[in-house]
Amino acid sequence: CNLTGWWENDLGSRMLVSMADSQGNFSGEYHTAVSSAQKPIKPSPLVGSQHLDEDGQCTFGFTVNWKKFSDSTAVFVGQCFSTDSEEEVLQTSWLLREKVDSLSSDWKATR
Amino acid sequence: CNLTGWWENDLGSRMLVSMADSQGNFSGEYHTAVSSAQKPIKPSPLVGSQHLDEDGQCTFGFTVNWKKFSDSTAVFVGQCFSTDSEEEVLQTSWLLREKVDSLSSDWKATR
Amino acid sequence: CNLTGWWENDLGSRMLVSMADSQGNFSGEYHTAVSSAQKPIKPSPLVGSQHLDEDGQCTFGFTVNWKKFSDSTAVFVGQCFSTDSEEEVLQTSWLLREKVDSLSSDWKATR
Amino acid sequence: CNLTGWWENDLGSRMLVSMADSQGNFSGEYHTAVSSAQKPIKPSPLVGSQHLDEDGQCTFGFTVNWKKFSDSTAVFVGQCFSTDSEEEVLQTSWLLREKVDSLSSDWKATR
Repeated sequence: CNLTGWWENDLGSRMLVSMADSQGNFSGEYHTAVSSAQKPIKPSPLVGSQHLDEDGQCTFGFTVNWKKFSDSTAVFVGQCFSTDSEEEVLQTSWLLREKVDSLSSDWKATR
Repeated sequence: CNLTGWWENDLGSRMLVSMADSQGNFSGEYHTAVSSAQKPIKPSPLVGSQHLDEDGQCTFGFTVNWKKFSDSTAVFVGQCFSTDSEEEVLQTSWLLREKVDSLSSDWKATR
Repeated sequence: CNLTGWWENDLGSRMLVSMADSQGNFSGEYHTAVSSAQKPIKPSPLVGSQHLDEDGQCTFGFTVNWKKFSDSTAVFVGQCFSTDSEEEVLQTSWLLREKVDSLSSDWKATR
Repeated sequence: CNLTGWWENDLGSRMLVSMADSQGNFSGEYHTAVSSAQKPIKPSPLVGSQHLDEDGQCTFGFTVNWKKFSDSTAVFVGQCFSTDSEEEVLQTSWLLREKVDSLSSDWKATR
């Protein structure tokens, strides 16, 4: 599948993905619409990797480093699908890791 | 925190992380000890990103592309901690995306 | 919130929830539209518990025991919301535990 | 498997499970060692369901209603295993649902 370009989700978050290289690695920018950080949201860099299957239904994953306004990190994993109208859709799941002070708070760090 | 080097988890999976660049991006190789794929396990490339906080307790995330033996993708997100004995430990959570045939099977694709 | 009655999700799964008792405990029946089991789907019993907050936005959780056609167990956790049109909607997340043969396969047992 | 009795996890949380009835339903009390609530922790009621497979490796799930000190709800899902020394161990995963004000905050409500 071709991840290159802009994508938007139900919550209004948008991301821009660069062309994947020959290994399937790509980079981009994530503009989140939601945040639990105190500071104002800023576009954040992403790096990831996709499969290069020829059926257009490849799986992919990427990491977003919110370094400009938060000490958290998010990861997304998903798959491309083609709808009947030949539109591509992405189905993703995510985990958000918040920074905690100590190992004893580790249990609550992941949403 | 300094992710560079070899790490091993409870299940015997090991990963080698390269030095992070000035943006916090890094690459490496993941040697999983467990797999639900039919083909034999091979070392798999990883790409990710970490925060560069000076307290050594940064959060990070990375994507593993199992392309050499599976059409799945995994993402990991976690945080570094220092123990009393000054050893560094990583606490991570992960999601594994398996390739499914169609959107109607999407519900079961993520472990 | 009042969970009593029939609910249906995007995938076409439906559930019937009995009246909660004074402690917030309830039971019911879950009719899943999707399954990875080999045997035909059958309605499955559920037991759970909800908060009794008066604002109608309580959190709740329940367990579905697929005993009639599978050795798996699922848990759901969520919250009620009222929309502008005074319709109630439920937002839920779930985990599905599949039975595995041994502790060494535990890593892959939860979707 | 026989869940009846006291169980303790790595974090020091303990639970007491009553005998399961003929349907596999059980109740009990959960004494969590960790909390993100402001109020002091109290023992909290749990209700759940287990399979009754004869191999002692059944899956189970339960809901904990933290109603005495929090408006959150947690669900746990897992499986029993027997170790070489014939000790039983439980492997579980959990989700914690926190109450949020509105649907627009739903994305962050589940840990």
